Amino acid sequence: MSQRIVTFTTDFGIAEHYVGAMKGVVYGINQLVQTVDITNAVPSFDILEGAIAISQAYSYFPSGTIHVVVVDPGVGSARRPILVVVGQHYFVGPDNGVLSLVYEREERVAVYHITAEHYFHQPVSSTFHGRDIFAAVAGYLSKGVEPAKFGDTIADYVRFLFPKPKQMAPNVWKGVVVKQDKFGNLITNITPADLPQMFEPASSPFRLTVGKAEVTQLRSSYVQGAQGEVFALVGSAGFLEISANRASASRLAGADKGAEVMVTLPG
Amino acid sequence: MSQRIVTFTTDFGIAEHYVGAMKGVVYGINQLVQTVDITNAVPSFDILEGAIAISQAYSYFPSGTIHVVVVDPGVGSARRPILVVVGQHYFVGPDNGVLSLVYEREERVAVYHITAEHYFHQPVSSTFHGRDIFAAVAGYLSKGVEPAKFGDTIADYVRFLFPKPKQMAPNVWKGVVVKQDKFGNLITNITPADLPQMFEPASSPFRLTVGKAEVTQLRSSYVQGAQGEVFALVGSAGFLEISANRASASRLAGADKGAEVMVTLPG
Amino acid sequence: MSQRIVTFTTDFGIAEHYVGAMKGVVYGINQLVQTVDITNAVPSFDILEGAIAISQAYSYFPSGTIHVVVVDPGVGSARRPILVVVGQHYFVGPDNGVLSLVYEREERVAVYHITAEHYFHQPVSSTFHGRDIFAAVAGYLSKGVEPAKFGDTIADYVRFLFPKPKQMAPNVWKGVVVKQDKFGNLITNITPADLPQMFEPASSPFRLTVGKAEVTQLRSSYVQGAQGEVFALVGSAGFLEISANRASASRLAGADKGAEVMVTLPG
Repeated sequence: MSQRIVTFTTDFGIAEHYVGAMKGVVYGINQLVQTVDITNAVPSFDILEGAIAISQAYSYFPSGTIHVVVVDPGVGSARRPILVVVGQHYFVGPDNGVLSLVYEREERVAVYHITAEHYFHQPVSSTFHGRDIFAAVAGYLSKGVEPAKFGDTIADYVRFLFPKPKQMAPNVWKGVVVKQDKFGNLITNITPADLPQMFEPASSPFRLTVGKAEVTQLRSSYVQGAQGEVFALVGSAGFLEISANRASASRLAGADKGAEVMVTLPG
Repeated sequence: MSQRIVTFTTDFGIAEHYVGAMKGVVYGINQLVQTVDITNAVPSFDILEGAIAISQAYSYFPSGTIHVVVVDPGVGSARRPILVVVGQHYFVGPDNGVLSLVYEREERVAVYHITAEHYFHQPVSSTFHGRDIFAAVAGYLSKGVEPAKFGDTIADYVRFLFPKPKQMAPNVWKGVVVKQDKFGNLITNITPADLPQMFEPASSPFRLTVGKAEVTQLRSSYVQGAQGEVFALVGSAGFLEISANRASASRLAGADKGAEVMVTLPG
Repeated sequence: MSQRIVTFTTDFGIAEHYVGAMKGVVYGINQLVQTVDITNAVPSFDILEGAIAISQAYSYFPSGTIHVVVVDPGVGSARRPILVVVGQHYFVGPDNGVLSLVYEREERVAVYHITAEHYFHQPVSSTFHGRDIFAAVAGYLSKGVEPAKFGDTIADYVRFLFPKPKQMAPNVWKGVVVKQDKFGNLITNITPADLPQMFEPASSPFRLTVGKAEVTQLRSSYVQGAQGEVFALVGSAGFLEISANRASASRLAGADKGAEVMVTLPG
């Protein structure tokens, strides 16, 4: 019988004991699991970046995997702890929208409001539910406790829609940089489905501006870019990225997360 | 039979191969373990931060867990390698006080001076005992080698006392920020046991200063703070924290690790 | 039967989902593996640092370990994906020299050009072969698929030679700092084999300059250094390091990666 996998996506960082303590709670309940970090370096309190990280990674894991997703600026408030089941994937975390991009990808979602306190690590602190509630619930889930044992299903769970690019004029769209990665790639909120005419094989020329960079080329891989060139590309996450070849597009463009991305297509 | 867990708490960082090599040594001796990071980003040479990290995490792990704790500025000197057994937890590391806060929490502690060189990874370098001694001993421990096989017990192991707040005047206490976490929380050395009158349900008003911040509110969770407010709170580690709601108290107060914390209670 | 171990050495960083997605692909193919990070914080596009990291760590792992090594600035170009077998160790990564220092340490190396696309994770992106090719191949390797099933052996794989110190005059050698570690140690490209007369027990005095530091002492451990002293030492990786005792040699010397290291021996 396979060991269950428990993944972690948090903003707790790697310089403190926080994630270690959470894993301790999981193993304390069920020693027969494997723990895997997706990332614990989500910017503090940044629910959208947490949502992006888990939505980009969970589907690669095998059936039965349990994903602990804790970006939880509202810890200690009335926000609910939830358990989400989609297909054969399980998620535990706060009901603050951090799983919104998982909901977007899935047709059938079951969301349980976690209320069964006998599964919590006691005493429950008011500042670290990652350890006392979410890790503990993940531990019991991994032992085969049925989702319905943790609480009732709810329909009014919090979800936000991923911000879409806006049409500003017949041929002009405005998007935004939602994330900068370690390489300096600027990941935008624009997908091929939003602007299909930009991505067609025989696409018309376009002009994209971000920061001080003007982009007119759509590449299919980083190495196609000339030295010092800033270009566009559909990244591995399915979003339009602004990139450079062996260099940081963020530095070249002088743009970062939150920067406006203007796309003009031929009239 | 469950796999044993081996945890890592070090100042070796995550940008080099150091912790990877240590895990390689453990798996080279016993492939049937699970390795878990508590943190490898302890500030270089900072024994107190290492001591805090391991003391906050170990107790959540199951019986039999082996904790490798290496913050070891004296590597290559006469400082002893030790193996510590408390209850069903095992610790290996240098005898420099990094386990002091574990000793403080436990009534019965057995400390062995590791001398059995045939359990070391040969040749033993003079600069990386984490790999050559501590990881190797952890590997053999995980295979069931008895602690007494590694050396004799000692009583004069190094321990320091966690720095306590000082009473400066009948109603005035001075503490210190021992750590800043990723969120900008300032963790102090003050516990409710040190200043019980501050933490009573019907507590008298208090005034706390740290950096340029003046704190008069004790909250029970982060979300109770108003925007831009710096407040006090008993954190998940049991220490008084100076915090802010979805913001960095460190930045708001202009204070960091080592900053003085003055508390005045009503006369 | 032991679980196979899959290690990761990449420049993907820890702040994104990239390594998490790779591990998901591995577990999606074979849940009975253990995943271990060597480091995912190799500087972006830095093939030499990736080569150093994997070469310093792999040999400690048990037979059968699979090492995923992805520093891959040429992803999407014609550079080949390869599978390398040395002794009982397996490596998967791009054919760009990142395994050069592994080749240097081994007498018998078998290199396969990975072409069997039915082992890839489909669809294969043009920007993230770490996930779609290398992790997938590692997953199937861990299930026991024979190396020859992934493609044919090749002899013209890319390898670079580790940069050697140069003799500038009869008694003068020039080396370079190839890496700075978290402690501020400056790791050079000089080994005892390059300059044996410097490292003999009864060695003649030497003078080494790096940045603004002049070094005349060879120590055998960090603790032998006086406060504020910058000294030389043969580090755990076998290279001459410029170090300081509980301090950053990099800061004291005002030198960093790429700095020139001049060694003068007595005439």
